[in-house]
Amino acid sequence: MANIRPVGDRVVVKPAAKEEVTKSGIVIPDTAKEKPQEGTVIAVGSGRLLDNGDRAPIQVKEGDRVLFAKYGGTEFKLEGEEYLVLKESDILAIIG
Amino acid sequence: MANIRPVGDRVVVKPAAKEEVTKSGIVIPDTAKEKPQEGTVIAVGSGRLLDNGDRAPIQVKEGDRVLFAKYGGTEFKLEGEEYLVLKESDILAIIG
Amino acid sequence: MANIRPVGDRVVVKPAAKEEVTKSGIVIPDTAKEKPQEGTVIAVGSGRLLDNGDRAPIQVKEGDRVLFAKYGGTEFKLEGEEYLVLKESDILAIIG
Amino acid sequence: MANIRPVGDRVVVKPAAKEEVTKSGIVIPDTAKEKPQEGTVIAVGSGRLLDNGDRAPIQVKEGDRVLFAKYGGTEFKLEGEEYLVLKESDILAIIG
Amino acid sequence: MANIRPVGDRVVVKPAAKEEVTKSGIVIPDTAKEKPQEGTVIAVGSGRLLDNGDRAPIQVKEGDRVLFAKYGGTEFKLEGEEYLVLKESDILAIIG
Amino acid sequence: MANIRPVGDRVVVKPAAKEEVTKSGIVIPDTAKEKPQEGTVIAVGSGRLLDNGDRAPIQVKEGDRVLFAKYGGTEFKLEGEEYLVLKESDILAIIG
Amino acid sequence: MANIRPVGDRVVVKPAAKEEVTKSGIVIPDTAKEKPQEGTVIAVGSGRLLDNGDRAPIQVKEGDRVLFAKYGGTEFKLEGEEYLVLKESDILAIIG
Repeated sequence: MANIRPVGDRVVVKPAAKEEVTKSGIVIPDTAKEKPQEGTVIAVGSGRLLDNGDRAPIQVKEGDRVLFAKYGGTEFKLEGEEYLVLKESDILAIIG
Repeated sequence: MANIRPVGDRVVVKPAAKEEVTKSGIVIPDTAKEKPQEGTVIAVGSGRLLDNGDRAPIQVKEGDRVLFAKYGGTEFKLEGEEYLVLKESDILAIIG
Repeated sequence: MANIRPVGDRVVVKPAAKEEVTKSGIVIPDTAKEKPQEGTVIAVGSGRLLDNGDRAPIQVKEGDRVLFAKYGGTEFKLEGEEYLVLKESDILAIIG
Repeated sequence: MANIRPVGDRVVVKPAAKEEVTKSGIVIPDTAKEKPQEGTVIAVGSGRLLDNGDRAPIQVKEGDRVLFAKYGGTEFKLEGEEYLVLKESDILAIIG
Repeated sequence: MANIRPVGDRVVVKPAAKEEVTKSGIVIPDTAKEKPQEGTVIAVGSGRLLDNGDRAPIQVKEGDRVLFAKYGGTEFKLEGEEYLVLKESDILAIIG
Repeated sequence: MANIRPVGDRVVVKPAAKEEVTKSGIVIPDTAKEKPQEGTVIAVGSGRLLDNGDRAPIQVKEGDRVLFAKYGGTEFKLEGEEYLVLKESDILAIIG
Repeated sequence: MANIRPVGDRVVVKPAAKEEVTKSGIVIPDTAKEKPQEGTVIAVGSGRLLDNGDRAPIQVKEGDRVLFAKYGGTEFKLEGEEYLVLKESDILAIIG
């Protein structure tokens, strides 16, 4: 999916299917107030704009397995697959 | 449409018609909380003002096919065509 | 109207009458969530104050035909004519 | 009224009486959402504190006839006269 | 009252008694939306922290007669006297 | 209580018992909108992070008797004693 | 649990079980408005992004016993164990 280039501090993520999540060992408790979600980074933007005009490189890269805050992302579908555009700050951690 | 020049960090976008969207392969699920929209960049401003007085160049350019957050843009019509003025930060990704 | 000098990042605009708007070709759809308005820049302030104490010059100039966000401006009348004082950030685009 | 010295980015203004406003030619429409008011600058503070510790000089001076946003100011009376302490950012424009 | 040292951008003020206010000539109209109050500065902190780690000296000094925004201050009593701890930004003007 | 080290701009305070407060002479009126509280600083963090990466040293030190805004602190008990973790900005003044 | 790497200013914490908390001596009163929680730092991110593009190192390290604000963290389970991803600013103090 090289044909989606996120802008600025945004990241495109493919959410993991349920069976994949089971394999990784991560479980999101039903009682969690803010439920995170697992997924794979597909593409990253040029990074957040700093006050001096530079861009701060995004701290995840294509292929990284990540835990992200579902809230705030924007969903879209391409060739039958579901994706999310998130802000880098919605990525909580890299798994594995 | 060279006669609309967005100011500062603003971008003018022509939203894609429904049949165009089908061709590109991007589908916005009906269940999406914040529905993005596809379109083409028509014109870009001089960029966001930095603390040192410089302008940060806008990261999309005329002709770019983009996915944008519909919310927050301002609609207008020129010669029978519908356009939107958006902030650069409402542009999520460049497609293709 | 040389006798109104906006302060800082403010701009004085004379809203276009309805018949003028028709000529320019810009139409604001009735369904638009945030309706912009057309007008002519009458006077501009010295610009937004930067962190280093400089002023960032305002990006529109006297005589510019502009599209602006109506919301937030302050109306006043001078010699029977209606004007608005806006912040530069309420100016969306320069027309023509 | 040399005995009121505003602090920082504050300005003391004497609101114009109704008959004075009529002379200046400025009229505030009854339908205006945010009604501005006319007045005369009586005293100005040392200016807004910048990140580097300097003060940005206030852009209006004693004696300036100004249009200001009524909302946010603080009223007081001295020797039977009514005054307002405003922030510099509540001053919209200098008249005349 | 040398035994109260305000921290950072805070100021300790002794509110003026009603009879003192009458003498100074300042009157706060009953109709004022945000009623200011008169008082005397008792002690000042080391000033607001700047981005570079310096402190911006507070613009009022011990003994200054001031007009302040009552809202936001914190009341306390010491040896039977009533005082207020305010932020420097709640001080509107120096009187006299 | 050397075994609690606050992080960043946080401070640990031991609230004064009622009889101690009486001795110090400070009285918090029942009618006070935002009631402050007296206490003793037990430990301080390394200070607020500045934009340049330095830390601004905290302006109170272990043993200082302080007046603090109760609101916002977090209570905990250690060895039967009650403590509060506060932000430095919740400390209003040093007493004595 | 070396296979969870928090991003930016985030920290992974393993909340302490109830019996452990009893041993440490810290007690959270039932009446506390904002109840903190005890736990052990498992992994830390690269730190908060500064305006100049540097990262400010996180002030806690793997193995630190910490008191943290429960509110705002994101829960997940890995290999049957419960963890939280927090922002560094949710860590109140280091214990012991």
